[in-house]
Amino acid sequence: MGNFMFHGVDVTDLAREYGTPLYVMSEDEIVRRVREVRRCFDERYERCSAFFASKSFLTKDMLRILMREGMGLDVVSEGELFLAREMGFPPEKIAFHGNSKTEREIASGLDYGVGKFVCDSQGEIALIDEMARERGALASVLIRVTPGVDAHTHKYISTGEAGSKFGLPPEAAKDAVSFCGTLRNVSLSGFHFHVGSQLMDNSSHLEALDVLLPLIKELDAERFETKILDMGGGFGVRYTEKDSPQGISGFIGGMVDRVEDFCRSNGIARPSLVVEPGRWIVSDAGITLYTVGSVKRLAGGGTYVGVDGGYPDNPRPALYGAEYEAVLANKAGLPPAETVSVAGKCCESGDILIHSIALPEARRGDVLAVMCTGAYNHSMSNNYNKNPVPAVVMIKDGAPRLSVRRQTYEEMFSGNI
Amino acid sequence: MGNFMFHGVDVTDLAREYGTPLYVMSEDEIVRRVREVRRCFDERYERCSAFFASKSFLTKDMLRILMREGMGLDVVSEGELFLAREMGFPPEKIAFHGNSKTEREIASGLDYGVGKFVCDSQGEIALIDEMARERGALASVLIRVTPGVDAHTHKYISTGEAGSKFGLPPEAAKDAVSFCGTLRNVSLSGFHFHVGSQLMDNSSHLEALDVLLPLIKELDAERFETKILDMGGGFGVRYTEKDSPQGISGFIGGMVDRVEDFCRSNGIARPSLVVEPGRWIVSDAGITLYTVGSVKRLAGGGTYVGVDGGYPDNPRPALYGAEYEAVLANKAGLPPAETVSVAGKCCESGDILIHSIALPEARRGDVLAVMCTGAYNHSMSNNYNKNPVPAVVMIKDGAPRLSVRRQTYEEMFSGNI
Repeated sequence: MGNFMFHGVDVTDLAREYGTPLYVMSEDEIVRRVREVRRCFDERYERCSAFFASKSFLTKDMLRILMREGMGLDVVSEGELFLAREMGFPPEKIAFHGNSKTEREIASGLDYGVGKFVCDSQGEIALIDEMARERGALASVLIRVTPGVDAHTHKYISTGEAGSKFGLPPEAAKDAVSFCGTLRNVSLSGFHFHVGSQLMDNSSHLEALDVLLPLIKELDAERFETKILDMGGGFGVRYTEKDSPQGISGFIGGMVDRVEDFCRSNGIARPSLVVEPGRWIVSDAGITLYTVGSVKRLAGGGTYVGVDGGYPDNPRPALYGAEYEAVLANKAGLPPAETVSVAGKCCESGDILIHSIALPEARRGDVLAVMCTGAYNHSMSNNYNKNPVPAVVMIKDGAPRLSVRRQTYEEMFSGNI
Repeated sequence: MGNFMFHGVDVTDLAREYGTPLYVMSEDEIVRRVREVRRCFDERYERCSAFFASKSFLTKDMLRILMREGMGLDVVSEGELFLAREMGFPPEKIAFHGNSKTEREIASGLDYGVGKFVCDSQGEIALIDEMARERGALASVLIRVTPGVDAHTHKYISTGEAGSKFGLPPEAAKDAVSFCGTLRNVSLSGFHFHVGSQLMDNSSHLEALDVLLPLIKELDAERFETKILDMGGGFGVRYTEKDSPQGISGFIGGMVDRVEDFCRSNGIARPSLVVEPGRWIVSDAGITLYTVGSVKRLAGGGTYVGVDGGYPDNPRPALYGAEYEAVLANKAGLPPAETVSVAGKCCESGDILIHSIALPEARRGDVLAVMCTGAYNHSMSNNYNKNPVPAVVMIKDGAPRLSVRRQTYEEMFSGNI
């Protein structure tokens, strides 16, 4: 019976050496996906560039990869920009998003000279103008437009419908365009939209384009040229067999085609295009390792396999009802023996990592590997029940190395007076 | 127009001095509630003691208060025990809970000599026995019993129904009692149950007692004397006007009466009793201050008031659909002008702190105080979107002091290699 291998590494060795819970990421897979996005977008079309959505996974190593591969970066906070700045990420390749940016955040973006601010309201544009003026700077901004599209995904990550907290509906966006025309320290470069996350195909994106492109045409007739159109992210991945995502090349290519066709047939200049993959780059490049603790078989049927992590390292099942696949890494060659629930260790009934999965017979000490946890796990981790944030191990060319140390208790409580 | 005062302090001063988001806690209110629980339980009945559920809020200051007031402590992890140990919390007054304790956790509990382990499965009891034997120790344990009661609360915090990940159903518990009889390094002291959290009255607790007490009687006839019955927590608080919690004295008193009546009429010795308040002690003793950022009025109606925190400091609205009340602290004397949604700053549609609340007209720079955030806010905080964990300010006798420093970005990224 063989152990489960992840990108050439026996993960039971990693569990033993680094302890569990443990995030394991493949640098090779991240690089492969970064290059695939660039190949089917940046390099396939002129004036197209992909920006990585750092909220999905942000570490120093991740920034090193992006800088090496030449991909841009989306940040949504002072904290994300802090790390980018510390690593010397080229400011012109950074876009600053966020529905409620603080003055500190805007200041940090202006002071580092980020390439553009994606603005969510007229009030924010006015503030950026004022703060840019104080610095003698000119801030490039995009207006986030809410296209009024229902993205058919979990409501927490569906962001493009009318009445969303994000962006401005088309009519309000037009007002904001006029408003920008009155400002001296803001240069409006174009528009952004994001319809939602974990989408299986580009139909919602195309619907959104059918709202955005006529708006761009209308403004073009009024002598406002849209130089940049940022089409957001949301490219889905396969968490379980229920997910059948469209290939990324067709997903993005279909969007570019729609824009090019529209611009050609309407005689307007095609804007530069941006997409913002996050999950698609890192999700499948990561797994999480746990050690099995108590195994409880209830008389009335049903088995709970308890593990040494859960909600603190992966809140997605409790938050979104997210589903995952998993294997018992040290029993990878064995056929399934029973259907179990994988219970997280938090004192909270909602902390069930996987509600139903067929596994070989589990015992205390087994290593469970949960698949496709590279996105929104490390970045959403927390210290609930005072569990430390797990370490991140990065695999490159079959060789693992520590990328982020496990949090210590001293660090966890260091702010306490 | 007056500013909002919290336990004698103008919170707009706190926002200015310590920055936002900011957790503000009243030590006076915590102490008052600790004393109220002790008065209506520990001091009112013989052999009764309340333990604070540290998962709801755990800081050094909180431990200082509990030690001074003589209240016991529930921990559910090595991390919670770490801080208790660092503060010299009396080990005999600590109970170690958890459905999937790791070996490290059991070791840390045995090494510190915690008063009791609350055990969730026979396998865990066997492990504790084995590890206690290696240390020449005798571990006092309780068996967690799942009474099969539906607690009428959010499913994530309803923990007592049949098929829960927690505890053993009564029949399995009886087997575990026999099993404990065969072990030399485990001393079974009794039982624990916990039906759920945020319960408005004690009806579910009484239902659970109607399952537990006959079990205790049955075991008594088989010569197993239950020395301790731990009746859990779950005492609800008022988050909004929808909540009408029963008074704590009646809530707990009714439970004690049920136990005493049963024991008297069945001629068995009444066990020592334990309750485990968490939320009830700290929730109402805390508020969170935010600064208003962008305010967006949609043409179709609806206003979003963006603040500088949200999901990272309070995931409860996204996780449970939890509702909160709030005031604009610097406009506390003004009547409501409009009904708004309070949007958190995370790039996530689910990050809405309050879906609908009537407030005076909000502007950038206003201070919003969200009520009743003392429990499960600081303890569930996270760095999503790389937002730092806010500071905690503690108020005593009208004087505020810094209790936990705001996390720095250097700390947030310190593990990165």
